Amino acid sequence: MYRTHTCGELRSTNIGIEVMLAGWVQTVRKFGSITFIDLRDRYGITQLLFGEELNDQLNENALGREFVLQVNGTVSERSSKNANLPTGDIEIKVSSFSVLNRSVTPPFTIQDDTDGGDDLRMKFRYLDLRRHEVKKNIELRYAVNRAARNYLHENNFMDIETPFLIKSTPEGARDFVVPSRMNAGQFYALPQSPQTFKQLLMVSGYDRYYQIVKCFRDEDLRADRQPEFTQIDCEMSFVEQEDILNMFEGLIKYIFKQVKGIDYSETLERMTWEDAMWNYGNDKPDIRFEMKIANLKSAFKKDGEIIATGELIHGAGFGVFDNAETVVAIAVPGCSEYTRKQIDELTEWVKRPQIGMQGMVNIRCNADETFKSSIDKFYSAEKLKSIASFAKARAGDLILILAGTEERTRKAISELRLELGQRLGFRKNNEFKLLWVLDFPLFEYSEEDNRWVARHHPFTAPKPSDIGTMINNNPVIENPADYLKHPYANIKANAYDMVLNGNEVGGGSIRIFQRELQEKMFTALGMSKDEALHKFGFLLGAFEYGAPPHGGIAFGFDRLCAIIGGSEGIRDFIAFPKNNAGRDMMLDAPSTIDEKQLKELSIQLTVQ
Amino acid sequence: MYRTHTCGELRSTNIGIEVMLAGWVQTVRKFGSITFIDLRDRYGITQLLFGEELNDQLNENALGREFVLQVNGTVSERSSKNANLPTGDIEIKVSSFSVLNRSVTPPFTIQDDTDGGDDLRMKFRYLDLRRHEVKKNIELRYAVNRAARNYLHENNFMDIETPFLIKSTPEGARDFVVPSRMNAGQFYALPQSPQTFKQLLMVSGYDRYYQIVKCFRDEDLRADRQPEFTQIDCEMSFVEQEDILNMFEGLIKYIFKQVKGIDYSETLERMTWEDAMWNYGNDKPDIRFEMKIANLKSAFKKDGEIIATGELIHGAGFGVFDNAETVVAIAVPGCSEYTRKQIDELTEWVKRPQIGMQGMVNIRCNADETFKSSIDKFYSAEKLKSIASFAKARAGDLILILAGTEERTRKAISELRLELGQRLGFRKNNEFKLLWVLDFPLFEYSEEDNRWVARHHPFTAPKPSDIGTMINNNPVIENPADYLKHPYANIKANAYDMVLNGNEVGGGSIRIFQRELQEKMFTALGMSKDEALHKFGFLLGAFEYGAPPHGGIAFGFDRLCAIIGGSEGIRDFIAFPKNNAGRDMMLDAPSTIDEKQLKELSIQLTVQ
Repeated sequence: MYRTHTCGELRSTNIGIEVMLAGWVQTVRKFGSITFIDLRDRYGITQLLFGEELNDQLNENALGREFVLQVNGTVSERSSKNANLPTGDIEIKVSSFSVLNRSVTPPFTIQDDTDGGDDLRMKFRYLDLRRHEVKKNIELRYAVNRAARNYLHENNFMDIETPFLIKSTPEGARDFVVPSRMNAGQFYALPQSPQTFKQLLMVSGYDRYYQIVKCFRDEDLRADRQPEFTQIDCEMSFVEQEDILNMFEGLIKYIFKQVKGIDYSETLERMTWEDAMWNYGNDKPDIRFEMKIANLKSAFKKDGEIIATGELIHGAGFGVFDNAETVVAIAVPGCSEYTRKQIDELTEWVKRPQIGMQGMVNIRCNADETFKSSIDKFYSAEKLKSIASFAKARAGDLILILAGTEERTRKAISELRLELGQRLGFRKNNEFKLLWVLDFPLFEYSEEDNRWVARHHPFTAPKPSDIGTMINNNPVIENPADYLKHPYANIKANAYDMVLNGNEVGGGSIRIFQRELQEKMFTALGMSKDEALHKFGFLLGAFEYGAPPHGGIAFGFDRLCAIIGGSEGIRDFIAFPKNNAGRDMMLDAPSTIDEKQLKELSIQLTVQ
Repeated sequence: MYRTHTCGELRSTNIGIEVMLAGWVQTVRKFGSITFIDLRDRYGITQLLFGEELNDQLNENALGREFVLQVNGTVSERSSKNANLPTGDIEIKVSSFSVLNRSVTPPFTIQDDTDGGDDLRMKFRYLDLRRHEVKKNIELRYAVNRAARNYLHENNFMDIETPFLIKSTPEGARDFVVPSRMNAGQFYALPQSPQTFKQLLMVSGYDRYYQIVKCFRDEDLRADRQPEFTQIDCEMSFVEQEDILNMFEGLIKYIFKQVKGIDYSETLERMTWEDAMWNYGNDKPDIRFEMKIANLKSAFKKDGEIIATGELIHGAGFGVFDNAETVVAIAVPGCSEYTRKQIDELTEWVKRPQIGMQGMVNIRCNADETFKSSIDKFYSAEKLKSIASFAKARAGDLILILAGTEERTRKAISELRLELGQRLGFRKNNEFKLLWVLDFPLFEYSEEDNRWVARHHPFTAPKPSDIGTMINNNPVIENPADYLKHPYANIKANAYDMVLNGNEVGGGSIRIFQRELQEKMFTALGMSKDEALHKFGFLLGAFEYGAPPHGGIAFGFDRLCAIIGGSEGIRDFIAFPKNNAGRDMMLDAPSTIDEKQLKELSIQLTVQ
């Protein structure tokens, strides 16, 4: 036995008892002949008091930061208490100690405000994980994991493991593959998700399945993407969209309650994909703040109707607006008195290549209800007032207007809205706003291949009312320029995303469960019958033996934890993450392997 | 909404209410104008009664086995109740129904006693999983999973995910590798276990870690080995062997209580590795029955002493015994009256190549306390009595004796003991006997390489009393013939196996946590300093920054579930298993991949 208590456990009620503690030396403070040491473990910090009688022994064993120590002693009342520490009322009067292991000086300090840079912290991840800042993330991750499992268990879901060595069916992202030694020339693939397996489990009658499971995608890594990531993966049978929304609204609320103590009592807002695109410029709106987009002019249609005709801005002779496909505005609250310099800086911001605008128009809605704008020359005060009213601006607001091509401009105003929301403190880390985004298009158009691609994945069902449209039309696009006129362009998916603070944290759909419709889907995606059979024959086969209606959802576990933890960076919520080049800096992996290994796998390198 | 209740839920207290059910057609029985259908889902079976008024509709929609049905109706009392079904008191008087999906005739019957062979069941695993026999295994697996998590959570363990794309460090088994597209010519490996990561987590201060996690080994598959398998993987800091034994004795008892309702109240038996080998001929004894091995003559030493000198059998002129290295006996209870034919059959059994004995000697211990043996010519009645007494045989027992070289003979008697235990019904599926096997040798001798190999793995610590022996001796074996005289041959490991009904279900050890000792271990295993640094530099590095004493254990989850489920075959406890060639018969994986994929990975095949 190495300890009787942890370093976070002892209180003034324990005063007088003999204890044995073990942990790491956080700090050593010498005051003349007595020495104080803060001893740290996973549970907390306890102050140790080494009296004069241990001085000789301490001098022989100079204790440094991160040494592993075991001490025997008596719990005593502190003379100067530390109200910030749960153990701050007591200290251990040490009677004997032993050094369990020594430590060289760590490459960075094991503190919240460490002096270690990112690369160093990743290389010495086992030391970085000691820091309280990182530890609380890992603990939060476990708390979310535990809460999710408990909720799903209570609701009759079963954790069923699906295989990791499966078949490569590249569709969308690239697969990681694993050469098979026993089947020379053949490869397994690592799953991008357990999608087809969970559907097969539904066919098998396991009507509520879940798994917290690793998935793999061999994609070029953007910041904050990992080649391996974790999903809370769920599927249910005999359900419609409404059943799923209710079940997983319950899950997220349970997690908030258990992990953060937050009663998220209001019903989650629901928004159609069109409304999200229309009002926020993207499909995962951050609704912690308003600043909705005012569409002054747009080629974007809502329910087949063009909403913003441009009547407010047309005919004033301002070429930028007259010639633009799209003109959109946001009213920034309380910023009418931004300086010229501030506005210039914002203009530069939207002109950066990542945003790609040519310029930005502004209208100051002054406190005295007058207006001052960069386009005064073209628009009368009355016109400006109408624009301001349309943009829902109030006195004191600053209206910012972008103009250009539809897609880029909408994306730009969305980015600008988020940037200003951030700068103005509207995007609080400790405020949580959830919503469902619904009614996504089933298909997107791939210009490269002049065919349809699945917006979600090939197993997502169309809305029941659109099944006829899908079955009864030829998916081939005769005229690429007119693809929007193809009936498939209007098919809506029975799909849903859960959005938290402007991040998609979960997504799913009701699935196709009839062979005929699934085959039509594969055809629509340009897959030949043979290809479909080769890749997904097992699923098509399964649909012939009594497949029940079913649907599901998958949550991005890494991101969900990060956002609940008040961060947007997922890496510090993963114990051993990889860097943006897909490397594990600590292990130095990937690495070369032996010629013998290659030979056994019947492969050779084409590079040296 | 597709249903108001499940098919396992309704009772006579529900009589009179309107319900909606959905499920699969198990059977259709027509009696004149009325039709009974058993509707099945995950939760049970409910009888449906279709009256005359639905006849026309039923005739239009001929319902077959495994059709997916949704019905509305009223819960009614059955005229002839079925006491074997929880829902057997009621039936649903159907008012309307719809066919949610049709089914072609399944390739085998979805019943406990299916007519489907193994290959067919694997190919159509999604149908096989519908069978009650398989479903209860999958449910049991989830119950074990849940119980393990709950126990570990209550004991402050944290589930921390470790990476799947790691570094190849082949040591023991072969790694599965994954070519890296972004790092051409380099490979990740899939983990054989999270061993080094869990040790790093101990260095990081997460003093109680667990994971229920997939592991991968690219080995030639024996029956009942899978290339991917699941471990309950655990590690603890600041512990000695005794702490770990107690913690995980608690775990297994908790699992038995939760999953099987069994109070396993007795303390787990503990047995040294030497005693196990000595008394049972193997290191995972099945102690559901006695029949211990009597060592009539052996080169096998116990605590440095030769126990069986052979004095009971020597000098009688029986060359088989006189010339054998080892002579071992078991007393088979109550079998003294086996016929000649039965004994011949057993003799043939031990002469099979898998067992490899030349013959078998028997002594019948007759009920009248006389003896009759196949070696009466050489041994007097008194001698036979002494042998019987030494073998702890009683009147009515049959003594079987094998002779030959040490290793083979001991293995043979062990197999014979198990076979007879099986035949005599001593190995009951519903009886559970646990034990700890302790004090394994740290090293084994590899004849092939004339060096030491780690019996457990290279991170296992020697017994504290043997650390000096390990540090202070040169591990090189000068004289291969005398390897047993090398001090390393006597070093015992701080390791332990948990054995359940003759199967190793868990194994672990106290780990090395000092760099010097770990380096010595790598040297002992024939690893150069460079190689050790290249493969395990991160771990050696971590040991320099205050590594705490730690140890752990891993349970083979698939096998544990199988044995608790009363089976020795793990496949039916895995939702989607692979066959003995490592193939997924359902997916038809592994399979070939595109030339484009190979090119992106900078590899090419050396076979076509």
